[in-house]
Amino acid sequence: MLIRSLLHRAIHDGTMLLRNHQKCSTVWRETRHCSALVYREHSHNIDTVRMEQLLLPPVADRSVRVHMLAAPVNPADMNMIQGSYPILCPLPAVGGNEGVGEVIEVGSDVTSLRPGDWVVPIDAGFGTWRTGAVCEEDEIISVPKDVSLLGAATIFVNPCTAYRMLHDFQTLSPGCTVIQNASNSAVGQAVIQIAAALGLKTINIIRDRPNCAELIDELQSLGADYVVTEEEVMSTGLHRVFEEVPKPKLGLNCVGGLSGGLVFSNLDYGGTMVTYGGMAKRPLQIPKSFIFHNVTLTGFWLTQWKRKHREVQLKAMLNAVCDLMRDGQLSAPHCIQTPFHQYTHALQATVQSHSRKHVLIM
Amino acid sequence: MLIRSLLHRAIHDGTMLLRNHQKCSTVWRETRHCSALVYREHSHNIDTVRMEQLLLPPVADRSVRVHMLAAPVNPADMNMIQGSYPILCPLPAVGGNEGVGEVIEVGSDVTSLRPGDWVVPIDAGFGTWRTGAVCEEDEIISVPKDVSLLGAATIFVNPCTAYRMLHDFQTLSPGCTVIQNASNSAVGQAVIQIAAALGLKTINIIRDRPNCAELIDELQSLGADYVVTEEEVMSTGLHRVFEEVPKPKLGLNCVGGLSGGLVFSNLDYGGTMVTYGGMAKRPLQIPKSFIFHNVTLTGFWLTQWKRKHREVQLKAMLNAVCDLMRDGQLSAPHCIQTPFHQYTHALQATVQSHSRKHVLIM
Repeated sequence: MLIRSLLHRAIHDGTMLLRNHQKCSTVWRETRHCSALVYREHSHNIDTVRMEQLLLPPVADRSVRVHMLAAPVNPADMNMIQGSYPILCPLPAVGGNEGVGEVIEVGSDVTSLRPGDWVVPIDAGFGTWRTGAVCEEDEIISVPKDVSLLGAATIFVNPCTAYRMLHDFQTLSPGCTVIQNASNSAVGQAVIQIAAALGLKTINIIRDRPNCAELIDELQSLGADYVVTEEEVMSTGLHRVFEEVPKPKLGLNCVGGLSGGLVFSNLDYGGTMVTYGGMAKRPLQIPKSFIFHNVTLTGFWLTQWKRKHREVQLKAMLNAVCDLMRDGQLSAPHCIQTPFHQYTHALQATVQSHSRKHVLIM
Repeated sequence: MLIRSLLHRAIHDGTMLLRNHQKCSTVWRETRHCSALVYREHSHNIDTVRMEQLLLPPVADRSVRVHMLAAPVNPADMNMIQGSYPILCPLPAVGGNEGVGEVIEVGSDVTSLRPGDWVVPIDAGFGTWRTGAVCEEDEIISVPKDVSLLGAATIFVNPCTAYRMLHDFQTLSPGCTVIQNASNSAVGQAVIQIAAALGLKTINIIRDRPNCAELIDELQSLGADYVVTEEEVMSTGLHRVFEEVPKPKLGLNCVGGLSGGLVFSNLDYGGTMVTYGGMAKRPLQIPKSFIFHNVTLTGFWLTQWKRKHREVQLKAMLNAVCDLMRDGQLSAPHCIQTPFHQYTHALQATVQSHSRKHVLIM
């Protein structure tokens, strides 16, 4: 699936692309230039991604000029650069799909936004790793400015994925249980917090690791009720947990393979397992018994949801997640803030390990 | 899960169990005896199943005496005898879960049935391999007598499974496509016919076999639009088919393993795969891509559906399936009629191969 990127459109609209590697200009407000992280081919070599100077088009009647403030580096961004994501931008493209910017200038027909507003792009493919952008009004949506910058920059992929999965697949009332793997991921952390705010109990599966006790403390401080390693679930099961809480009606699987099976096999009769990632790169193995356990398996991809739910539902979701942030019930993920020009380090770290999320600060 | 069988209840109610191996009596109408195929332990050895004479209880106010006419031998019946089915009868038990009988006598408070009616048991565990039974009115439901005996005897498991799967998981309008494996099974044949009656197109996957052309002809004569072997799907795909019909919104999987994957991977975006069997005894492998294809996987087990949908919906389904039979749109599966006392042959054949269905004629 190909999507048109802002850069692609800039090129096709006849605006000039400057290829010199200048450092991000601090006088961007006065110029029509921006710095952007551009890739011209799909490759696993991150040197493919280089900072370039782009010339932005003038603001038209229905368009908006934005100064990007902060943009995370997500694994999916790297998959897009590598060419292995289900949606790809036409090349050359600017990397990054998520981030927050400030509105600088609006066209005469723009009604929903004003200079000074914070905005986030609605769809994947925006190319958020840039200092500035000119886009159509309907490509972005405002977020309240009373959430943190990191919160706003990372609100629209992971917390919203967690929010939707907790709301759309099972009717869960306080006291119900949710089980998940990849519990330390950004989505996993958001699941823990949003579930706690909803009065739900969470069983959080993690991979065994050297700093396990520390991680368990950290997730519990977010509101996790149970944190268990894959090895514990495999060896002793969750019988003790199920003496205290009901079996989960909802399972969230970001790993696949064996770990997905642990989520699946501990679901309650009639439960649903939602798969939103495949970190293990191994297929999920579904035993025949799922016929009799009346379990449903489904996938969730927020990008697709957003395409179908514009306007009211999109805004309602953003407001609900911002409310949780404002109330202190949902914190931004633990991030490493990286100055924009040090992007190489952020990209490398994202590709190489399951490190903390890097957020580029423009 | 344990279910109370009629035999179990008979024993607990104090009625006598005669263990001599008498041939089925032709004077059953005058006696309170019946012949039944009883198993006293779970075993893969079919000699465990033996014909015994049972003494039936008298007909009480709300009970009904039935003379069984015909009862199929289904693979699930054999799994129950082997102890590998998710519901098991307390031992000793009478085999068989499906069949048609004629009402001989009704209790004074019975309102829904009259002598002469044809009836089928609603739940699994009835023990249909017997010449006679006394049961509660609400354990059986009448079927019209203008369908064939074999049709009535085999209506309530396979055609109803096909009917539900075609109605409950996707909204399918004429011209939509359904893909299935195990297309030559009793359910598969019913799917072909009911789908054709609904104006749906079917893609039917079969295993390669010596008499392939013959089988293809047979399924096409039932209304199959496309019949393809697993090997063909794997080697050349279904591109040609999809030049003529849309990709399927609904996939039906009775096999699992590789074959289940062929159904899954040819589904349309947003499709549903319903798994109702695992003949290959291999787990279904679900690739990560199902997140992006928005495919849902679910299991279906008619026994469970029946427990939740009594009275009106049960009757409506039976009537709809009988209407299809009466209109010539749904034929009984190709069966081998076996005299009751030759049951050993029918059981052996069902265990040993994917032979045609045997129906015991009482």
